[in-house]
Amino acid sequence: MSSTIAAFGRSGGRLTVGGVPVDRLAERVGGTPFFAYDRALLTARVDQVRSVLPAAVELGYAVKANPMPAVVQHLSGLVDALDVASAGEMRTALDTTIPAQRISFAGPGKTDAELRQAVAAGVTIEMESAGEAARVIAAGERLGLRPQVAVRVNPDFAVKGSGMRMGGGPQQFGVDCEQVPALLKDLAAADLDVLGLHIFAGSQCLDADILCQAQRNTVDLALRLAEAAPEPFRYLNLGGGFGIPYFDGDRPLDLRPISDNLAALLADRIRPRLPRARVAVELGRYLVGECGVYVTRVVDRKESRGTTYLVVDGGLHHQLAASGNFGQVIRRNYPLAVGTRMDQEAAGKVTVVGSLCTPLDLLGDKVALPHAEPGDLIVVFQAGAYGLTASPTAFLSHPAPAEVLV
Amino acid sequence: MSSTIAAFGRSGGRLTVGGVPVDRLAERVGGTPFFAYDRALLTARVDQVRSVLPAAVELGYAVKANPMPAVVQHLSGLVDALDVASAGEMRTALDTTIPAQRISFAGPGKTDAELRQAVAAGVTIEMESAGEAARVIAAGERLGLRPQVAVRVNPDFAVKGSGMRMGGGPQQFGVDCEQVPALLKDLAAADLDVLGLHIFAGSQCLDADILCQAQRNTVDLALRLAEAAPEPFRYLNLGGGFGIPYFDGDRPLDLRPISDNLAALLADRIRPRLPRARVAVELGRYLVGECGVYVTRVVDRKESRGTTYLVVDGGLHHQLAASGNFGQVIRRNYPLAVGTRMDQEAAGKVTVVGSLCTPLDLLGDKVALPHAEPGDLIVVFQAGAYGLTASPTAFLSHPAPAEVLV
Repeated sequence: MSSTIAAFGRSGGRLTVGGVPVDRLAERVGGTPFFAYDRALLTARVDQVRSVLPAAVELGYAVKANPMPAVVQHLSGLVDALDVASAGEMRTALDTTIPAQRISFAGPGKTDAELRQAVAAGVTIEMESAGEAARVIAAGERLGLRPQVAVRVNPDFAVKGSGMRMGGGPQQFGVDCEQVPALLKDLAAADLDVLGLHIFAGSQCLDADILCQAQRNTVDLALRLAEAAPEPFRYLNLGGGFGIPYFDGDRPLDLRPISDNLAALLADRIRPRLPRARVAVELGRYLVGECGVYVTRVVDRKESRGTTYLVVDGGLHHQLAASGNFGQVIRRNYPLAVGTRMDQEAAGKVTVVGSLCTPLDLLGDKVALPHAEPGDLIVVFQAGAYGLTASPTAFLSHPAPAEVLV
Repeated sequence: MSSTIAAFGRSGGRLTVGGVPVDRLAERVGGTPFFAYDRALLTARVDQVRSVLPAAVELGYAVKANPMPAVVQHLSGLVDALDVASAGEMRTALDTTIPAQRISFAGPGKTDAELRQAVAAGVTIEMESAGEAARVIAAGERLGLRPQVAVRVNPDFAVKGSGMRMGGGPQQFGVDCEQVPALLKDLAAADLDVLGLHIFAGSQCLDADILCQAQRNTVDLALRLAEAAPEPFRYLNLGGGFGIPYFDGDRPLDLRPISDNLAALLADRIRPRLPRARVAVELGRYLVGECGVYVTRVVDRKESRGTTYLVVDGGLHHQLAASGNFGQVIRRNYPLAVGTRMDQEAAGKVTVVGSLCTPLDLLGDKVALPHAEPGDLIVVFQAGAYGLTASPTAFLSHPAPAEVLV
């Protein structure tokens, strides 16, 4: 965890984001709470991934992890592709200079209106069912345009050890792989440009061996399906699933074996069969998660029956995941710091709670922190992905926090 | 559960809300998904509570349960008081004709700005700590106004069997009861109008015996603290905590014993000691939770390895609690219906998922429903409280749903 905190700078006992001390940043923003994303850390993260990924593997950014327009604009200059999960995200992606075909649109519940928007934009629609395929064809006919599509595949294997399983067994995501050959045959007769496949089995995995095995299984499956395809695939989206460490004991993912594995799969398996296919990995959380912080101010410090509480002016309405209430089975503390006392030692354990009238609003349970008083800034790390947009911002009708890219 | 669904009307095989069939309502709203609250059910619910509560007990509405302005306006004509948890909710409450003093403002992280707003408005500030009391006094001095306050008390007992525990042991909520006498003495010397106490120990309780015991303990504690108070209390907020049934097997709360218990406490205990104190209960979820539905449209029906999925155009971004991801330890299905096929029998089990790219977006796991096709409307019940505002509406950048009071 300390590496996460150490990635941000320090100046005069203050944490810095993009070189700006957090207390000055709070003044610049106009108040607390706010999210701050560090532009240099984003760039460094993409560079790090690029430096180990085989050059022939394209890097996509999954906008859903952090759709702040400035973040998407910045990353769009660094990655090859963007993945979107709604028409709203698609508009944000289309505002960049990434070509429309390199914007992929996935998601199990695309409406007819969204499909028409996607066809009109010329983005690559990752179709999740035969029913959706029929609706894409109808949208193309209605608009007089030939839709660009890929088939999202629900594999016949699961990725154990993922934070979330999104493939294997019955799923709302994708077409069961055993149904894909028949679907590809049907689609060949339709007025569609079928580019290839998207196969994605799980997310937030911290084990390189598991990810390598998943990639091998994914490539095996893709090549098996390629045999049944009327035309050679020109696109193969292998998904992502690269995790980041959130909790004490989590170890950062080792990219090197993943990269070696991908290079071998590309050279030995994919290129001999699909020499010209674009091969992409798609990362969201991994690119942005560790580059952002959520900054709150201590409003009250109180003792209650032996527990010291720091009550801050933010809470789960802005950073739900840190409260342990979004997909987690067991609540654990996200890394926290007193951003205004980075040069001080821990002075006992405190419980950091948000300002909401609910016991769920717990940001740090008995955390060792320097002594903090009202006015100090409490910083929650790992807030760059699935932070603000994955939180119930209207809960209890507090003002929305600012977001800044520094 | 069936009683929840039966409370709404039917017409020609359609569920009705406020007498309007849901498919017609979708046209009127301009699309799906949306939340619809039934005005007549809200009125009936308040009438039901009023009919059993002792006439001398005031009924307050906790705005946080559903802050939609039209709902708050409607309820403000039926209840005696409003409770708010933020300056935003306070503005909504002040837009009604409820007198400011009958608006109570609770919450552990009130900022200085919020406290000034509350003092300026003349609402009753329910102070959660000695530190907050000092800030209220400062706000009053700054504005040249005498703040109206109550002390929120963290009791020395917990309410077992509550959905959420908010009292007993160490808490961020309220002042530990053993510290209250000293605080009251200090406050007597300050330029504050100390009206009384707010004691609230837990929420979402379905067991009348537990609630009766909690009320007895609460009154005991209040009267004990009254002895230490420099002046007789004029206000006693006993909280609420009345639960509603969400899941199969949950039984609706029986109000009669609670009401009898309150009447006895009032006559035998409170009135002899505090003859003129306003005594209030404060209900949020209980007044609105069962009066609202979340209406989505089926976008796709797909089979995957033996499971039938209905993919709808809404999801956890609008109704997080129904996905089991907000405070629940074990996910269970909220009551669901096919709003466009109320006259049809169940035709096998289906899994209802939202449109988001996450396996968390599960609205109904293997639910027995009539056969539904794309275009049909899926209705999620018990959506009147902690629905839209307790959900991550910006997640994946989908449009916000409409809310209507019918």
